Amino acid sequence: MKAIATKGARDVRATGALELIDADIAEPDGYDLRVRIEAISVNPVDTKVRAGALGPLDEAKILGWDAVGRVEAVGDHAAGFAVGDRVYYAGQVDRPGCNAEQQLVDSRLVAHAPASLEIEESAAMPLTGLTAWEGLFDQLQLTADPKAHSEETLLVINGAGGVGSSVIQLARQLTGLTVIATASRPQSVEWCRELGAHEVIDHHDLINEFQATGRDTADYIFNCHDIGVHWENMVTLIRPLGRIVAIAETEHQVDLNALQPKAASFSWEFMFARALHGYHIERQGEILAELATLLDEGRLRSTLGEVIGPLNVENLTRAHEQLEAGHTTGKLVLTAMR
Amino acid sequence: MKAIATKGARDVRATGALELIDADIAEPDGYDLRVRIEAISVNPVDTKVRAGALGPLDEAKILGWDAVGRVEAVGDHAAGFAVGDRVYYAGQVDRPGCNAEQQLVDSRLVAHAPASLEIEESAAMPLTGLTAWEGLFDQLQLTADPKAHSEETLLVINGAGGVGSSVIQLARQLTGLTVIATASRPQSVEWCRELGAHEVIDHHDLINEFQATGRDTADYIFNCHDIGVHWENMVTLIRPLGRIVAIAETEHQVDLNALQPKAASFSWEFMFARALHGYHIERQGEILAELATLLDEGRLRSTLGEVIGPLNVENLTRAHEQLEAGHTTGKLVLTAMR
Repeated sequence: MKAIATKGARDVRATGALELIDADIAEPDGYDLRVRIEAISVNPVDTKVRAGALGPLDEAKILGWDAVGRVEAVGDHAAGFAVGDRVYYAGQVDRPGCNAEQQLVDSRLVAHAPASLEIEESAAMPLTGLTAWEGLFDQLQLTADPKAHSEETLLVINGAGGVGSSVIQLARQLTGLTVIATASRPQSVEWCRELGAHEVIDHHDLINEFQATGRDTADYIFNCHDIGVHWENMVTLIRPLGRIVAIAETEHQVDLNALQPKAASFSWEFMFARALHGYHIERQGEILAELATLLDEGRLRSTLGEVIGPLNVENLTRAHEQLEAGHTTGKLVLTAMR
Repeated sequence: MKAIATKGARDVRATGALELIDADIAEPDGYDLRVRIEAISVNPVDTKVRAGALGPLDEAKILGWDAVGRVEAVGDHAAGFAVGDRVYYAGQVDRPGCNAEQQLVDSRLVAHAPASLEIEESAAMPLTGLTAWEGLFDQLQLTADPKAHSEETLLVINGAGGVGSSVIQLARQLTGLTVIATASRPQSVEWCRELGAHEVIDHHDLINEFQATGRDTADYIFNCHDIGVHWENMVTLIRPLGRIVAIAETEHQVDLNALQPKAASFSWEFMFARALHGYHIERQGEILAELATLLDEGRLRSTLGEVIGPLNVENLTRAHEQLEAGHTTGKLVLTAMR
């Protein structure tokens, strides 16, 4: 099969950054499905792995951890799926990704794609939807009940990004939280409001902007930006015994002691952790099924921002460039290789 | 009234470290009770404040945050207590402590002392009992049910210390957790076993000792030691999506990013946080009442280690010295000033 792989490069236009390759694809065994890819989305993890975040690559690596496709073949232990089913999933960072014609994926990480969405809309959702869900319900340990947390406030730092866009929606649909999101450009402010944020504030003057809404502190903070940049803001804005979740490692030194006087908590959300460590990985298939239901019911909307075009080296390079430049609103999606 | 106060000194034998003073005591108003002190316990926070952890002291400060005594007078809003009641409490770090003949304390932080215990036994319990309780149930968010967490493991680092001794007991009495505590001296190993630890391991070779019990990781870690000393051990031993709680700030740099690949959580427990920030402070009175019930039912035992003698400068100095030398097993208690 054809695939697009990287040998690693900080600059996406450098030689070896993204190249068309021929790769083998096996019959699935065990829990695996073989899927023919119909649409994919890109995420910061793609550009980070390409640029060397996991260290030098021994061999060309196929990136891509957001896919929609048709099941072509089913392993012996892969229950719940049949040839021809349309599925969606994020997959595993330590296996070949979905920037390819076909992919093997553990069926426990997979759900049927939302029936009512276009494939491009579904492709935008798995990785960020899982991250938002796990962050809210596994890490912040919120209760999924529209009457729960109705006296409490969630601050979403970088609300218009891929994860933030799902956090805002899930918090509004599944809890009674008041949601305050950060955004600074008119387009991203409007995007956060459409997704359901009660208030949108500018992250460049976060403490004053937050407190101008009439609150001293937030009960919960979901930080979708670099924690080092916002560490002191979070120390100031988290309430006593409050809880913070974050998704992005930092190159800044952070002073963990600073959270002690408030007896606050800090959690990492890392969507690949379950599969990487073999810890209840079936939970990700269950969450994706719940997200599909919410999407089909119209309670969530896809965070698709732009369809770049079919998956080829030039389009994928442009997608990486746009991600690395920042300021994307919603997700970037590519359709099947051709 | 007489009290023992500090003007701040790193060395407890230095001039101004601990001195007998005359201090005023007012009639209680608002939520306050005035209590005549019958027994007190010492904690690391006493020696830290004396040595300058809160910065230079503007005036002589009365230390002490573990008290048993009789209510002498009751403020207008102090419900649930009458003159003559025997009470126990930890109090507030930003008010004068209990190293005195009398003390004013917010009644919302107070409960009736266990009826069946000697006052010396009760005096050992408030600060460490609250810390253990809040750490387990507010921070680790465990479920207080003997059938809960029966497939899960709690690692208690420094199990024989004041907090660890209560953590072991509460985890055994109120949850189904398997409790693995660290201790290294024969006396402290035996102490941890008597309190209910399923296994006691040596913290000097923590990873190997832990894994020799047949487990790769712990679901929860309650670290009662310096987090910097055990950071890498905790990174290795916490399970994916596991939760860590700690009570002691560190002078070491810790690498928060290291917890990210496992999507682990880190919480600070700080018993003074509720009162310091005015956050649901009535909860501490409720927890102390629950602890008193457990003590009266014989389900918890006091962690009293040694009664030093009556509260005077020499005895309190010895108590600080013993705490600062480490290696105390159980709590050090002093009886009323005379």
